[in-house]
Amino acid sequence: MSDHDLKTTFWDRVENVNVGMLSATGTDPRPMAHHARRDDGALWFLTAKHTDIGEDAAAGKDARYQIASGDAKIYAVVDGTLSIESSRDKLDEIWSPMDAAWFEEGKDDEDVRLVRFTPKSAEIWAHDSTAKAFYEMAKSAVSDDVANPGGHGKISF
Amino acid sequence: MSDHDLKTTFWDRVENVNVGMLSATGTDPRPMAHHARRDDGALWFLTAKHTDIGEDAAAGKDARYQIASGDAKIYAVVDGTLSIESSRDKLDEIWSPMDAAWFEEGKDDEDVRLVRFTPKSAEIWAHDSTAKAFYEMAKSAVSDDVANPGGHGKISF
Repeated sequence: MSDHDLKTTFWDRVENVNVGMLSATGTDPRPMAHHARRDDGALWFLTAKHTDIGEDAAAGKDARYQIASGDAKIYAVVDGTLSIESSRDKLDEIWSPMDAAWFEEGKDDEDVRLVRFTPKSAEIWAHDSTAKAFYEMAKSAVSDDVANPGGHGKISF
Repeated sequence: MSDHDLKTTFWDRVENVNVGMLSATGTDPRPMAHHARRDDGALWFLTAKHTDIGEDAAAGKDARYQIASGDAKIYAVVDGTLSIESSRDKLDEIWSPMDAAWFEEGKDDEDVRLVRFTPKSAEIWAHDSTAKAFYEMAKSAVSDDVANPGGHGKISF
């Protein structure tokens, strides 16, 4: 699979995953729900101003996002940077009714922070069947082969 | 949820997950299929002698294993140590027909390495419904509450 194809596969499949593990440099990973937007070249997260992630994004820290989904056929270790997005239009686009449950003032709550994660590079395993995934992972583990035909490789964004 | 209950929930649910992301200190995470054994207090992995994980286990390195499964209702960051298990009985117990596909000599292949991951501590999110998981994760993110009633906390093994 070419780098281009692997990147396409990444964006196709990450849309089918709800939650990954996000960690800024120096912090432990925690589950976060993402909103993937291929056209933005970004994964979006909603959080509050005084959370670790909110503060890490305000500081523009590097971060790692890990996805592990057999159902969506994607495992990925994505390295990139966090930032705070201040566009109200983007918040309107990303915001879902579910998010309203945890901000007293809803979307207008002053604590709401829309966090942009901009991927820079990633190692991706995107095998086409669950059975194959196991075998290929195994083979990959044995050979340390980073470009096996089942869809494993490192890409830049 | 008490520490004891959270640990019980961890072992109950990790059996329903096939693959997590394993990284020894200083190496990048990669997907690995685990075999969870509560009675051993261990997660078992099969690999080959000359893989990164095989070598890290031979060196007795510390490692981190991350699990992220909405279906199994568990997200976990588990810290522990790797070691090589030399018991043939344990290999017989863990070995499955699927593993035979990638060792030329099957279970008797001299490259087969049974790796034991012994958890020492973990941060666990184990919410009881997918919907709740999202809300609780969100609330947890907001409050940095490490002991919310939905099943989030840090435990020692």
